[in-house]
Amino acid sequence: MVVAEVTVIPIGTEGPSLSKYVGKALEKLEESNVKYDLTSSGTILEGEMDEVLKGVKEMHESVFDEDVLRVVTTLQIDDRRDKSLTIEGKKESVRKRLED
Amino acid sequence: MVVAEVTVIPIGTEGPSLSKYVGKALEKLEESNVKYDLTSSGTILEGEMDEVLKGVKEMHESVFDEDVLRVVTTLQIDDRRDKSLTIEGKKESVRKRLED
Amino acid sequence: MVVAEVTVIPIGTEGPSLSKYVGKALEKLEESNVKYDLTSSGTILEGEMDEVLKGVKEMHESVFDEDVLRVVTTLQIDDRRDKSLTIEGKKESVRKRLED
Amino acid sequence: MVVAEVTVIPIGTEGPSLSKYVGKALEKLEESNVKYDLTSSGTILEGEMDEVLKGVKEMHESVFDEDVLRVVTTLQIDDRRDKSLTIEGKKESVRKRLED
Repeated sequence: MVVAEVTVIPIGTEGPSLSKYVGKALEKLEESNVKYDLTSSGTILEGEMDEVLKGVKEMHESVFDEDVLRVVTTLQIDDRRDKSLTIEGKKESVRKRLED
Repeated sequence: MVVAEVTVIPIGTEGPSLSKYVGKALEKLEESNVKYDLTSSGTILEGEMDEVLKGVKEMHESVFDEDVLRVVTTLQIDDRRDKSLTIEGKKESVRKRLED
Repeated sequence: MVVAEVTVIPIGTEGPSLSKYVGKALEKLEESNVKYDLTSSGTILEGEMDEVLKGVKEMHESVFDEDVLRVVTTLQIDDRRDKSLTIEGKKESVRKRLED
Repeated sequence: MVVAEVTVIPIGTEGPSLSKYVGKALEKLEESNVKYDLTSSGTILEGEMDEVLKGVKEMHESVFDEDVLRVVTTLQIDDRRDKSLTIEGKKESVRKRLED
């Protein structure tokens, strides 16, 4: 199980807004069974590596369906083998530290 | 006003846990007047560019106070000049798209 | 064809050096037919999306073979559909600009 | 001394080409005394943290001079305190590993 953050950035769009493209990419994710959490900087995915990579590829491809000729997709994968990482678990462990 | 996401990763720590280091870095941020939002993949900052860069540098330095010899800090800055970006505003604009 | 940059960072290693782990990851890449270029910040890959994702996954996995319990892998994919991106082509287009 | 990689991505440009913007950003860097190395995925900087952050901010700002309303700048800083990191040194240490 990995927790990964993805951003998809279309290059050469009419204006500076990205929400239409991010929305389309998230619709693709809804069709996959990858759990996700939307943040103001990207989308955090939780799942097995292959599922996550498949979801990222589909998000990446969906942007080209919107008359875009170039896409830069960034992905940061956090993978831990001594315990299973989850979206909630990672936040919780830092919150606890702040309370100490 | 920019919205930026930062992750600080110490290299050469005793074990695989990062929460102690992230907790220390967030304590530094609390002392600055940069608004932030903790996610499971990083910390999202909202503020003027100079304030944000100062906050990131302090977060980065704080990890060295924990007997760490190497730190990799990643920062993604989103800066828009036709309207002011905020942590909440960016999430809201994508949520609206998903409702359409 | 995409051009992508990957960094693999092991968490919880004995010391601050990463070259052993990067070396192992590059050995995996040598076995795949993905073209690559080593830089001082990461490894740049050139190939079809699926080949590149497969190469990245193998690089990521190879670090766990070195008694590491956690790995953070970062990937930035640049994908252009109006012309084929290559490692050399991307550098060349910026160099030309600098000469103008 | 840190070694950092920066990419500047303009959002809402006429077409998918980025070389004009990267070229302008590099011109700014030439004016600063930060050593740099151009790769096909970004620009690698070598210098003191404050110099590097100043150089990155100037590169980021230079893109707005080209009638761009939004810029996403990504920075990955590698900072080691037991020995001084350099662009050449980092590549050399991995090359040696590959030869072993």
